[in-house]
Amino acid sequence: MDLFSRIRDQVAIVGIGHLPFAKEIGRPISDTAIEASQLALDDAGLEAENVDGIVMYELEKTHEVTIARGLGVENLGWWDKITYGGGASCATILHAAAAIASGVATTVLCIRARNRGSKAARPWAQERELVTDDKALHVPWGLIRPVDVIGMWAHRHMLVHGTTREQLGNVAIAARRHANRNPHAMMHERKLDMETYLGGRVIGYPLTLYDCCLETDGALACVVTSAERARDLRQKPAYVHSGAQASGPNPTHLANYNTPNMETTAVPCARQLWERSDLKPKDMDCAQIYDAFTPLVILGLEDYGFCARGEGGPFTEGGRIELGGDLPLLTSGGGLSEAYAHGFNLILEGVRQIRGTSTAQVGGCTSVLVTGASGVATSALVMRGD
Amino acid sequence: MDLFSRIRDQVAIVGIGHLPFAKEIGRPISDTAIEASQLALDDAGLEAENVDGIVMYELEKTHEVTIARGLGVENLGWWDKITYGGGASCATILHAAAAIASGVATTVLCIRARNRGSKAARPWAQERELVTDDKALHVPWGLIRPVDVIGMWAHRHMLVHGTTREQLGNVAIAARRHANRNPHAMMHERKLDMETYLGGRVIGYPLTLYDCCLETDGALACVVTSAERARDLRQKPAYVHSGAQASGPNPTHLANYNTPNMETTAVPCARQLWERSDLKPKDMDCAQIYDAFTPLVILGLEDYGFCARGEGGPFTEGGRIELGGDLPLLTSGGGLSEAYAHGFNLILEGVRQIRGTSTAQVGGCTSVLVTGASGVATSALVMRGD
Repeated sequence: MDLFSRIRDQVAIVGIGHLPFAKEIGRPISDTAIEASQLALDDAGLEAENVDGIVMYELEKTHEVTIARGLGVENLGWWDKITYGGGASCATILHAAAAIASGVATTVLCIRARNRGSKAARPWAQERELVTDDKALHVPWGLIRPVDVIGMWAHRHMLVHGTTREQLGNVAIAARRHANRNPHAMMHERKLDMETYLGGRVIGYPLTLYDCCLETDGALACVVTSAERARDLRQKPAYVHSGAQASGPNPTHLANYNTPNMETTAVPCARQLWERSDLKPKDMDCAQIYDAFTPLVILGLEDYGFCARGEGGPFTEGGRIELGGDLPLLTSGGGLSEAYAHGFNLILEGVRQIRGTSTAQVGGCTSVLVTGASGVATSALVMRGD
Repeated sequence: MDLFSRIRDQVAIVGIGHLPFAKEIGRPISDTAIEASQLALDDAGLEAENVDGIVMYELEKTHEVTIARGLGVENLGWWDKITYGGGASCATILHAAAAIASGVATTVLCIRARNRGSKAARPWAQERELVTDDKALHVPWGLIRPVDVIGMWAHRHMLVHGTTREQLGNVAIAARRHANRNPHAMMHERKLDMETYLGGRVIGYPLTLYDCCLETDGALACVVTSAERARDLRQKPAYVHSGAQASGPNPTHLANYNTPNMETTAVPCARQLWERSDLKPKDMDCAQIYDAFTPLVILGLEDYGFCARGEGGPFTEGGRIELGGDLPLLTSGGGLSEAYAHGFNLILEGVRQIRGTSTAQVGGCTSVLVTGASGVATSALVMRGD
């Protein structure tokens, strides 16, 4: 029996909300999470008393019961946190869906609040405390920051497949052009052209400033409920058509850049995702591919089956990944140019595309792929409209 | 539609395993988690390659992918961590069940490894760093350790309901007598009588040494799969008949001892648990009620509906909660006398009772209640046999 049919198109995202993104949000993180959740409930036309679940990232610094109390939730009947940073993004929706499909919850908030505050939010700045587990295999050799490790992936892709800096630049520029249309994007007013891109200072060879995501405070939330309830609510539902989490056989924290055929953790995730889906990559009207760094997007195009291994670079050419192209990517500006909230903003943008309310709206969009961070144990989602 | 019917008796615990409990286990925590998981798989007659999910407590200090790699799991398709200390215990099984019932995973390991190592594992010993959130409401006033707060619950119960120290002692002595039958229990060889109990030194008034759980290192695991697969496996399945998580309307970290009618977070948990269950409290052949401190057991008897509010003390009298009595409690010795692993050992003991393999076996046992820590957002489980 295909038990995933209990989730497929039977659960929907019915509300979204977020606070203005900022370099420093300047308020307690719990307050921002509560306020974003209230916005998402308002958007759905639901009340706090309808909520009985909360799912968050494990790196989230808020407490479920503090949020519940602040909102006025009467009782939570489901909560969990999911590990592996941005790998958790789409998994929050999948866990909400599993709770709903198995009768444990009816209406679940998925939340991502990020507030770097006065302390460094970048954990590698405190590596002396953190060199444990897999990290002991690479941190002492200088692969310290995520950008160092993703740089190795990028360099290998360039060497083996001939990927060029201009192709990485196509990703950064597509994201920026979409951000320029999105008043909520941190980079809304800043243009980026190829000359500027190529002149960016090196952050971790071969990656430069514009290959790297922003550093952003923010608070975002989604409301997830059954398709049956969704039909009575205010917004056009974004149905959870497929979803998957995957670790792959030998995951290490980002640093498995020497896998056979350059396969990231997204490969087993994609396999599961499409197995559970009636839709295929060719059916996607746009894709929000996790973009902590530009090469992850090129790898993601390959991993999720939009092109063969090594063809991700050429795929980005000729406007193909921009609005009007075959597969617009990162239509809100993504982590590169809208805000870096460990991928949760990509989920909200997926919902907007299904609703038809994106500022870079793909005409007639009915199917969207959203992915979490690859390299770490990850997750992905296919949303569809009616 | 009763969606919980997708879980009820459709998912089962099919394997259990744990390492010998110790005051100091003396080995890396990941190694112990991997070894306990392997024991649970061996017990079930399954291989690592069958596993596609891991669920743990949020306070767990291990990484899912490290355990998966160490065991030889090919790919994880579900993982999460659940907050609120011992409140998470039964929720691990519930989340595994939801994953299985909704087709996201087929065979899930639930794990609890605790390794206090050379560092103090008692976080209140580092309170200067930890006075955040709700704790700011009570820690500065001297309610620092869990025992301080549970002492307030106990004292109120004594004042309002006339509960006696002897009644608390009945809980400690029942747990100890059961531990005396269990060769794995830390207190296997140590007897406890009422005179010794009453002479225990005060830890947090009115609670004394024998009202408090042990401090133990340990590693424990369960394997959860569908009832359909369970029928082909080695052990008699312990079916997940009902399960619930609950936060209640106004949860604060243990410190809500002034709730109306002394209701803990277990009250909404119990309501949901029994609503989802064909069985009722009177059908339970034994109960493993979370016992970080003896008063939690007396409150638990009331909260889970075995007796009315205030009658938990008298309920413990006349051998009623010991083997041979109406409702044997903590038949492995529990957190008080077997080991303190934030309640995960209570789940393993529930499975043994269903299998008929406990060292304090209740004759003809087919139904067991297991509960998580009350006071914090919590969880509970009803298991049944064939």
